Amino acid sequence: MYKVTKPTLLLDKKKAIQNIKRMVEKARDSGVNYRPHFKTHFSKEIGEWYREEGVKSITVSSIDMAVYFAGHGWNDITIAFPVNILQIDVLQHLARQVKLGLVVESSDAMGHINQGISDPVDVYIKIDTGYHRAGIWHENAVEIKELITTIAKHHQFMGLLAHFGHTYQQTEINKILSIYKTEVSALNQLRDQLGTDMMISIGDTPSCSLVESFEDVDEIRPGNLIFYDVMQAEIESCHYGDIAVCLAVPVVAVYPERSEIIVHGGAVHLSKDYLKDDKSQAYFGKVVSLNGKTWSEPLDDFVVVSLSQEHGKITVPKGQIEKIKVGDLFGILPVHSCLTANLMKEYMTLRGERVSTLHQ
Amino acid sequence: MYKVTKPTLLLDKKKAIQNIKRMVEKARDSGVNYRPHFKTHFSKEIGEWYREEGVKSITVSSIDMAVYFAGHGWNDITIAFPVNILQIDVLQHLARQVKLGLVVESSDAMGHINQGISDPVDVYIKIDTGYHRAGIWHENAVEIKELITTIAKHHQFMGLLAHFGHTYQQTEINKILSIYKTEVSALNQLRDQLGTDMMISIGDTPSCSLVESFEDVDEIRPGNLIFYDVMQAEIESCHYGDIAVCLAVPVVAVYPERSEIIVHGGAVHLSKDYLKDDKSQAYFGKVVSLNGKTWSEPLDDFVVVSLSQEHGKITVPKGQIEKIKVGDLFGILPVHSCLTANLMKEYMTLRGERVSTLHQ
Repeated sequence: MYKVTKPTLLLDKKKAIQNIKRMVEKARDSGVNYRPHFKTHFSKEIGEWYREEGVKSITVSSIDMAVYFAGHGWNDITIAFPVNILQIDVLQHLARQVKLGLVVESSDAMGHINQGISDPVDVYIKIDTGYHRAGIWHENAVEIKELITTIAKHHQFMGLLAHFGHTYQQTEINKILSIYKTEVSALNQLRDQLGTDMMISIGDTPSCSLVESFEDVDEIRPGNLIFYDVMQAEIESCHYGDIAVCLAVPVVAVYPERSEIIVHGGAVHLSKDYLKDDKSQAYFGKVVSLNGKTWSEPLDDFVVVSLSQEHGKITVPKGQIEKIKVGDLFGILPVHSCLTANLMKEYMTLRGERVSTLHQ
Repeated sequence: MYKVTKPTLLLDKKKAIQNIKRMVEKARDSGVNYRPHFKTHFSKEIGEWYREEGVKSITVSSIDMAVYFAGHGWNDITIAFPVNILQIDVLQHLARQVKLGLVVESSDAMGHINQGISDPVDVYIKIDTGYHRAGIWHENAVEIKELITTIAKHHQFMGLLAHFGHTYQQTEINKILSIYKTEVSALNQLRDQLGTDMMISIGDTPSCSLVESFEDVDEIRPGNLIFYDVMQAEIESCHYGDIAVCLAVPVVAVYPERSEIIVHGGAVHLSKDYLKDDKSQAYFGKVVSLNGKTWSEPLDDFVVVSLSQEHGKITVPKGQIEKIKVGDLFGILPVHSCLTANLMKEYMTLRGERVSTLHQ
């Protein structure tokens, strides 16, 4: 039993462990390494749940997060973010402590790493296969080849690392699977062209959740799947029943005349990430009911229509509003669980235990 | 001189104090009480800057924030958020410590307060004058009158509290001033109808920044104006030069071929709040240059086009991209400074001093 008196991020440990297990098994069956992204939960305790499933290598998104997990017994850490050369001294220190993986995409950054980090580190080249956020365009084989030479001077060139971030913008399973197929094929073509021994590491939650097995890659890095969220459920990477976190929010005002309630649960709890419904109406999460033990499937026609700093405004179906009183609790399944977890800084399990993060 | 190696929220103390002084003086000249909202900065150190200008009463948006400031010498605190009755025991404790102001909008919530808080507290009725987020509709004088009776049984009825939140959606000064005029007039009509002695407390940053003086109200509560932000500059509540916080971000990747850079500065630093430009293109802040001492006016044609968890993508004018290298620093003026401050958890002044918040 959990007891909540203010906005609290509930965590269903059983679902989270099921989500971890599912991916660990699929990776094992496919013969690929699973290096989960810990930017979703950033919690030393939750890290242990992965460890119990045999996970030994992790991904993080910032140097600070790497320092935190290095301090909690993780000694194989890839920072899947272009190297911030202003923190090179911290990286040098980390490289002495753990097997450190860095991601580069320019000879400029690599020059700084060669100068600033004397202990050998594992270096991946970030490849852009179509998302156009970061990475070298996959057709630039000459530039990539030169970069491999610069890397190999002082460090260990590991392989090609990509993130198919545009799968998050899809709503059809076939389109996600098609992106996965095209991009993995582009990475393999590039590997063939380069003619060197190297691994391929990929990592978005939508495609990793949806493919049957991981062909032609060596490592997967998805992180969001431990919690999933409304975005993933809408993409159909998961079912609503797989979502493992839920923001419990107290009702603080009820407006029968306009069928709305105000809850204590706003942008500082959920983040401002939103999705749009069939009518192009933005919504900021899905409402569920709470019973002190678990939470329900999303309630029909309850809509989180707006968030301000601390307020959440929810529209309620006509027949329901009369039953709602101040002091009632609802749950909101977050649109984007990584951002909600970052804001909430700690979790409460369904048994009422607190789980900390690097922020708390 | 400040020195930055990772995403850091710079704070120009001089500008912040100027912003405070401007409002303190306007309030004094108008003969109204200034009860600044501390939800923008939530910092005990920054609270002292207000105290040095003679401010004695404050507004907060959550019970936790009230507890924090009560612990740091503030003894006249209004929680301008509908009472969360699940935390009534914390409120009872606070009521013994400080002069506590609560905001109610239903006899249901007031019943819980009467039952759960034995020490007398100051109670304001939240009035909706047009924003339609929280509050009793200003024309419901009968309901309001009944609530005053319920309040007066055990506690001190203080007056009417309103927030003209729809001023944030305006882009013309005249429209903001017109909202202010209409709503203040509605509150005064209501006061006349109720025929009891009571104060009127209002508080949005746009109208409080733009009106010449505060006629027909007794208290103002704006908070955002200490920092201001891009939203306020676009509304013209302030000039860009008044904005007192700026997120310093390191460049981690440069793409001359598409005139874009990636900085370490994403949704976990800035929040996902955005504005739209003339072409309906969303942007997530305004880019400025940094020189180790202060920051510039917004740079023309630099656009923060997207944010993911840690990445910020900025488009750069053609002639400029060649000059940018990894390891350079830029600044981003936040769209919504309250949310950015909440995420960053601490500030660095232009002299390099750290300023803490209730989160750190």
